[in-house]
Amino acid sequence: MPEIKLIEIREEILADNKVLAEEIRDLLHKKRTFMLNIMSSPGSGKTSLILQTIRKMKGAFKIGVIEGDIDSTVDAEKVLREGVTAIQLKTGGFCHLDASMLQKALKELDLSNLDLIIIENVGNLVCPAEFDTGSIKNAMILSIPEGDDKPLKYPLMFTVCDVLIVNKTDYLEGSDFDMQALENRVLKLNPAIKIFKLSCKTGVGVNTWTDWLEGEVAISNYT
Amino acid sequence: MPEIKLIEIREEILADNKVLAEEIRDLLHKKRTFMLNIMSSPGSGKTSLILQTIRKMKGAFKIGVIEGDIDSTVDAEKVLREGVTAIQLKTGGFCHLDASMLQKALKELDLSNLDLIIIENVGNLVCPAEFDTGSIKNAMILSIPEGDDKPLKYPLMFTVCDVLIVNKTDYLEGSDFDMQALENRVLKLNPAIKIFKLSCKTGVGVNTWTDWLEGEVAISNYT
Repeated sequence: MPEIKLIEIREEILADNKVLAEEIRDLLHKKRTFMLNIMSSPGSGKTSLILQTIRKMKGAFKIGVIEGDIDSTVDAEKVLREGVTAIQLKTGGFCHLDASMLQKALKELDLSNLDLIIIENVGNLVCPAEFDTGSIKNAMILSIPEGDDKPLKYPLMFTVCDVLIVNKTDYLEGSDFDMQALENRVLKLNPAIKIFKLSCKTGVGVNTWTDWLEGEVAISNYT
Repeated sequence: MPEIKLIEIREEILADNKVLAEEIRDLLHKKRTFMLNIMSSPGSGKTSLILQTIRKMKGAFKIGVIEGDIDSTVDAEKVLREGVTAIQLKTGGFCHLDASMLQKALKELDLSNLDLIIIENVGNLVCPAEFDTGSIKNAMILSIPEGDDKPLKYPLMFTVCDVLIVNKTDYLEGSDFDMQALENRVLKLNPAIKIFKLSCKTGVGVNTWTDWLEGEVAISNYT
């Protein structure tokens, strides 16, 4: 008789990843280093935000960057030009970073000499949300041209993030992007999420973001 | 000194997958079963094509279907209503099927009693192209509303497929889809690819597709 047989694919892949991620967080706490994982669609402004953040914070904090990219070192080169060491993880087609990849990257960094590590995850709103990188906090960027409906389409991403950065607010004027609708949708999924609105292009709002991040780094460094 | 350090992420993940995929192909050859992997974006018509194919071929061939889906059994239920057994692989967030998942699925099917296994891969033009499922042939669907530029954006997918099915040709009239430009782009990436143009909705062109598939299944069954 024809029938349907259901196979649940290896939940243990994610379970194993979680174990590695917790090991990474233990190490970061021991070294008093804050690690932030930034996720978004391609083109939302991850690299721009990282470069702006480096410029504002590098005077007071020692920063390292881990770049996840399918097949280029362009972003790592931009980071290097700001005087910051970048580890480039070439995923070779993989659409996310996982904890085992992060472990390899962290071995290349001198954690005792870093206050803040920023991860630029692979541009994708689906897969990176599944894999805990071992970061202390997760941030995502949504840019105005992507639309206010994204929380409906990618709920997991909005759920796993501690911070939502709404970028490209310079596009708001004349657009039909409904900021209140976005906030309602996001907060329904994740009432504790912090929302920052900024434009990496004009610089408006960036200080509020870096003020928050500096506070988080300070907490990690001294507790 | 700041620097860039490059880490190439585990090529061995794909290498290990390739070994498993070859094991699957050996098994299929031994059992004289043809396995076809169908890939496309979400909404291109994978399930519709599978249902049409089952209707045309189930009189003469014993068919099984393996459904890859992030989190539902809707497609498997449609297959079952055609009187065909479906294995539902719930990937739980993973964006592709790999050979280890297929091994689990094939254990649930009686290969000695099947001429044709059709895999409906997860709807995605990136990740599934990376992972050999152990199928004898790979097919992809591109639907007219997706546009003729997709070979430029997803070259690997067009390169790994033996067959391209251009679906929803009923949308051609009045659209700016340039079929000649599509064919030129596809054949430049993959000169050996076979191209079928059809509409699952109207049925136009479906017979040419199933004629080809029946030929492939016959070769597998008797050699």
